[in-house]
Amino acid sequence: EKITPQAAFDTIEGTRRISWLDIESHDRNILQEVISLNRFHPLTLEDILIVESLPKFEVFDDYIFFSANMLTVDTNDLIAEEKISIVLKKNVLITFQEGLPGDVFDELRNKIKRSLGIIRANPVDYLFYQVLNAIVSSYSHIAEKLRFEIEELEDQILTDDNYEVMKEVIAIKRKVNLIRRHTIPLLDAVTSMKTEGAQFLRKANQAYLHDLQDQVKNILAFCNTSREMLRDIMDLHHTNQNNEMNRVMKTLTIVSAIFIPMTFIAGIYGMNFHTMPELDWKYGYFGVLGAMGVIGAIIFYILKRKQWL
Amino acid sequence: EKITPQAAFDTIEGTRRISWLDIESHDRNILQEVISLNRFHPLTLEDILIVESLPKFEVFDDYIFFSANMLTVDTNDLIAEEKISIVLKKNVLITFQEGLPGDVFDELRNKIKRSLGIIRANPVDYLFYQVLNAIVSSYSHIAEKLRFEIEELEDQILTDDNYEVMKEVIAIKRKVNLIRRHTIPLLDAVTSMKTEGAQFLRKANQAYLHDLQDQVKNILAFCNTSREMLRDIMDLHHTNQNNEMNRVMKTLTIVSAIFIPMTFIAGIYGMNFHTMPELDWKYGYFGVLGAMGVIGAIIFYILKRKQWL
Amino acid sequence: EKITPQAAFDTIEGTRRISWLDIESHDRNILQEVISLNRFHPLTLEDILIVESLPKFEVFDDYIFFSANMLTVDTNDLIAEEKISIVLKKNVLITFQEGLPGDVFDELRNKIKRSLGIIRANPVDYLFYQVLNAIVSSYSHIAEKLRFEIEELEDQILTDDNYEVMKEVIAIKRKVNLIRRHTIPLLDAVTSMKTEGAQFLRKANQAYLHDLQDQVKNILAFCNTSREMLRDIMDLHHTNQNNEMNRVMKTLTIVSAIFIPMTFIAGIYGMNFHTMPELDWKYGYFGVLGAMGVIGAIIFYILKRKQWL
Amino acid sequence: EKITPQAAFDTIEGTRRISWLDIESHDRNILQEVISLNRFHPLTLEDILIVESLPKFEVFDDYIFFSANMLTVDTNDLIAEEKISIVLKKNVLITFQEGLPGDVFDELRNKIKRSLGIIRANPVDYLFYQVLNAIVSSYSHIAEKLRFEIEELEDQILTDDNYEVMKEVIAIKRKVNLIRRHTIPLLDAVTSMKTEGAQFLRKANQAYLHDLQDQVKNILAFCNTSREMLRDIMDLHHTNQNNEMNRVMKTLTIVSAIFIPMTFIAGIYGMNFHTMPELDWKYGYFGVLGAMGVIGAIIFYILKRKQWL
Amino acid sequence: EKITPQAAFDTIEGTRRISWLDIESHDRNILQEVISLNRFHPLTLEDILIVESLPKFEVFDDYIFFSANMLTVDTNDLIAEEKISIVLKKNVLITFQEGLPGDVFDELRNKIKRSLGIIRANPVDYLFYQVLNAIVSSYSHIAEKLRFEIEELEDQILTDDNYEVMKEVIAIKRKVNLIRRHTIPLLDAVTSMKTEGAQFLRKANQAYLHDLQDQVKNILAFCNTSREMLRDIMDLHHTNQNNEMNRVMKTLTIVSAIFIPMTFIAGIYGMNFHTMPELDWKYGYFGVLGAMGVIGAIIFYILKRKQWL
Repeated sequence: EKITPQAAFDTIEGTRRISWLDIESHDRNILQEVISLNRFHPLTLEDILIVESLPKFEVFDDYIFFSANMLTVDTNDLIAEEKISIVLKKNVLITFQEGLPGDVFDELRNKIKRSLGIIRANPVDYLFYQVLNAIVSSYSHIAEKLRFEIEELEDQILTDDNYEVMKEVIAIKRKVNLIRRHTIPLLDAVTSMKTEGAQFLRKANQAYLHDLQDQVKNILAFCNTSREMLRDIMDLHHTNQNNEMNRVMKTLTIVSAIFIPMTFIAGIYGMNFHTMPELDWKYGYFGVLGAMGVIGAIIFYILKRKQWL
Repeated sequence: EKITPQAAFDTIEGTRRISWLDIESHDRNILQEVISLNRFHPLTLEDILIVESLPKFEVFDDYIFFSANMLTVDTNDLIAEEKISIVLKKNVLITFQEGLPGDVFDELRNKIKRSLGIIRANPVDYLFYQVLNAIVSSYSHIAEKLRFEIEELEDQILTDDNYEVMKEVIAIKRKVNLIRRHTIPLLDAVTSMKTEGAQFLRKANQAYLHDLQDQVKNILAFCNTSREMLRDIMDLHHTNQNNEMNRVMKTLTIVSAIFIPMTFIAGIYGMNFHTMPELDWKYGYFGVLGAMGVIGAIIFYILKRKQWL
Repeated sequence: EKITPQAAFDTIEGTRRISWLDIESHDRNILQEVISLNRFHPLTLEDILIVESLPKFEVFDDYIFFSANMLTVDTNDLIAEEKISIVLKKNVLITFQEGLPGDVFDELRNKIKRSLGIIRANPVDYLFYQVLNAIVSSYSHIAEKLRFEIEELEDQILTDDNYEVMKEVIAIKRKVNLIRRHTIPLLDAVTSMKTEGAQFLRKANQAYLHDLQDQVKNILAFCNTSREMLRDIMDLHHTNQNNEMNRVMKTLTIVSAIFIPMTFIAGIYGMNFHTMPELDWKYGYFGVLGAMGVIGAIIFYILKRKQWL
Repeated sequence: EKITPQAAFDTIEGTRRISWLDIESHDRNILQEVISLNRFHPLTLEDILIVESLPKFEVFDDYIFFSANMLTVDTNDLIAEEKISIVLKKNVLITFQEGLPGDVFDELRNKIKRSLGIIRANPVDYLFYQVLNAIVSSYSHIAEKLRFEIEELEDQILTDDNYEVMKEVIAIKRKVNLIRRHTIPLLDAVTSMKTEGAQFLRKANQAYLHDLQDQVKNILAFCNTSREMLRDIMDLHHTNQNNEMNRVMKTLTIVSAIFIPMTFIAGIYGMNFHTMPELDWKYGYFGVLGAMGVIGAIIFYILKRKQWL
Repeated sequence: EKITPQAAFDTIEGTRRISWLDIESHDRNILQEVISLNRFHPLTLEDILIVESLPKFEVFDDYIFFSANMLTVDTNDLIAEEKISIVLKKNVLITFQEGLPGDVFDELRNKIKRSLGIIRANPVDYLFYQVLNAIVSSYSHIAEKLRFEIEELEDQILTDDNYEVMKEVIAIKRKVNLIRRHTIPLLDAVTSMKTEGAQFLRKANQAYLHDLQDQVKNILAFCNTSREMLRDIMDLHHTNQNNEMNRVMKTLTIVSAIFIPMTFIAGIYGMNFHTMPELDWKYGYFGVLGAMGVIGAIIFYILKRKQWL
């Protein structure tokens, strides 16, 4: 069932336990009410509502704000995004989702239910870390998938190259660029969390943040490496094209180099001059056929030695 | 109606309200008077008057100076620039425009009229942020437009490539370079605003500056990404050229490989030797025609297996 | 007329006004005397005398030293360099030139004469800034000139490409590299002036240094951009070469594809077999001519559809 | 024989000597016991168990944690990895290996046995440095091997180029990328050791850390250089391909340029016109043969001068 | 004559003058004795003995250690390296050479003998600077030589391009990479000397270090620029290859386009049909010859207009 923000915060007020409030809607009225109840900065409301945004971290007087897009691969092998905004107050964690079908925190909720001991016992900043971890993992997961695709593409281009490869390179490159575009500000955000967010994140949990930072750095490193790998694939494709061109040209040259001189000889004896002594020789014809054969064989042997055959 | 600077500042003096003075002229005399009345540094006058400049931020004893070029796309799809200079004093914001037709702050003025509550109630540094935001948005807007054009170009080159694509790549690249050239010092300016301008910008509004900084970073990231994308497009075009060359060469090779040997055979029996036994055979002609057909078919089959057909 | 260093410094001692001493000679004896009279560090003498050097800034106990090469475009469109060294003491500015014909500070001297009010009234560090400004402007001026040449080259390669373009690219690239090689240490120098030279440069004039720094940054940004633009021009030239190759190959293929099969047919009926029924047909000749025409037309039509014509 | 963690730590407790505990197993139960006995952070257990990880350094209240993958070249010339985790407490060094066959610290143990004087006399942080050194050396060793392979490949491509070179380039590039991926966080780790790990690493041993840092920097420098060298090799291969294409095309052009005009002449005199005066000339045939020879020789001479032969 | 380290240090102890001890041997026993006598860190011994190393700087309690390879060009135009290690104590400078024939400090010793006044009067850190200067100069010298070679290569490729150019590019590139590999840690070393070595290097001599740092930066800048220039040369070579290919293909196309159609016409009238009216015409032969001439001329004119001739 749905409850009003007022009711939700009343419930929270009444308890001394740490709380996680997950708002799965971008309805401006509801959000406005949440913002007002908590006296958040007006920019926070704007930041939650803008869907096409990059990861962002902001420290306010009595809360910190973080937003990023959760990435998932949809059924068409495309990357789908869902904006997640997180507000961390003293004892409350509020997450805002776009309200798309499918819940990105399912796994996390199960984890909470399973490991009541660890998560429930920890203060709210540990929960904050877990939510962040879920988001970053969604990036790592796609990066890993893309790395696999790139290596597969590389193997494929070494064995059987065709033009479609280029379309795949472009398609993967777009995805890598998408991830990279989000990861750079994400790294900024996590880094400034460590320094500026110190007030809200207990020192004991710094290890988790450090861990997150390493993960994000690795994703970024993947993006840079993969861009280079994709460039290599384009170069390899180019090399393959050149190789094929070389083979085609060699074939043409072989055919021409063997038959054009022989055709010329045939042309000579096809002339209609009245005085052509060879034509009267008894074995002229067979002699010429033999000469042609020898010339063709010599040319063939030369090309063979040049390793064109 | 036009009023003199003296009159304008007298009006401002008389009020305790925060004020925005928008000077839409680059008339040296008027500007000189404004500079003198406020005892600004002589460099400020020069900085306002130089039209071909890059974004700049400077802190003086009793005011801060910021200038940048507002970018708009004109009717010819070219980027038009208008220099905006901003001086922020304790209670007054003075903006200087070149005075070109069309007012770049129209939207902002409407916003002020509509949302009297928010902007009017805020001190002058909030207004400063709004003006900056209008400038940066003009960059974002063009960047977004260019991103769209680049992706369109990429799709186009994958389906139907022609030479005109290269001219478009060059045209877009020039625009990206223009934006990038302005964005790098703009980022510098916004960053040093956060540290050096602290005296004039209330801590409560730092969130807005942070927001601006993120926007500028994203524009810069776009520029870098787009340069790589344009390079990819050039590579793709190159790949397409090679593909077409390969197709042309294969066609030539196929035609040559099939007909040159057959023409050679025809040449042989076109020779005029007196003693050529085959010529007297009853079915010699048809036999040779058949042999030619078989040879042509074999070569055709070989090329087919090489997948050149 | 020439005066001895001793005499010059005696004159300076006697006055309380700020002074600018411009030494247009690299005569070691004279310089040695100047160095001794002022008790400068021995390295300073060496730094003044080395002509092939890069911009340099050094702080000593009672003076700061700066040197850079002034760049001008000579009549052969080549870049000429003249080493300028500057020593700024408490009340004296000493500049050292190589003593080449043409005086690089002419414009500045005129400015001083014209605007007695501003420059003369200001302390010696303002004069120092003006000299620096003259040097940096000489860089900006050439950078602007090169930017124009590059854009011109880019336009030219889009309309009418020829091989000479590559020679121009190389020539411009050398100039850009020259400027870049000087600009990087120049930026270092100006930056460390702001921090380390604080003792000699009044805070009130920091705005001028800031301005200089922006100018140098822009020159550097130009160098980086232009290197990329020149690479694009090389790529475009390469693309043009490929296009021309494609056109040439298509021409060859068209001629071959049309005439080789027809020539083969002519070859068949040029054979001398006794039994060739077609030869006796009344309209055999015209039939074959017609057949050739049809075949040629079909091939022509196929190539047309492939858009090779 | 195997001993339980409890027994091991009891032994350590009882002695005042520094101790090295090497756990060659990733059995979760054993590790869990070690973690509990020492009251390590839960993340440490996770970090030890994740095999596919990058180098990591973390400071906790009473210990520091470092993990990295040891690299060795296996019999198939592939790079094998074994995860090593190290925990440094006040007086105890605990290392965790995956427990693969072959012990990576053999050499180090021998060194300890041999040089009892140096290692045994030193506190535990010296031992920590020796373990780190063993890991970094495993990287250096492979980097050195790859550098050798790359230079060999470069020499090979200059003398005898073939397509297999590209496969080797790809294979080496993958290895370089693998090393690079590990080296970047390794450098981060060693750098933050110097600052954050100060509490556990005696100042007297800082020289060792500095030494390590230099080694890691050199490995990273190798990776960057080698990527450029591999790109050069690809470019060289491309250049070689073009050269071969040029040779092939020249051969084709020479054959065609010489024989096609001569064949045309033969074709002329093969025509069957009734009135062809040359046919009746006594030396017509020999004249034409001579003319063909002259034409062929002239064309040959022209091509010779163009240096195509 | 050779003296023992003990004797050498006794001599030094007895004097109050600053001393320079130059040890031209890598004999482990002698070095061990020097190390022991001065109570140096064991790593210092290792660092002196490793020949294949990169520049390194280390601060110890009572001395600083610096090592780098001196580069010289040998008679085969290859770069020869000699490891130089320097230890600077309060009053003694100890340098360690490999003991190769030829003494790298000859010039420096001459300088000392000549300019007794300057070097002898200065404390030991000035001597240290002079030794460093000798090493860095050996780098600058080679860099200057390579810059000259690269520009020569660039000129050469513009006038007369051949394949050997690529081998030279590779050879120079290897040298540049060698220098670059040493220069990067050298810059690190000199930079940390300025901050960490302050205790051993008098402030009055900081200007010399600053000077050194500038030199090293310039060498590094050269390396980066030259890598780009070498890439340009490779691109130019590639462009030249394409140009040659274009010329070859045009020649082939011209010959084919002119002669293939004419040969076809000759083929037509070489057919043996009984009814071929043209054959009986009196001027048929000359008419056809004329027609061929006209066709050839038209094609020639078309190709001329396409600027292929």
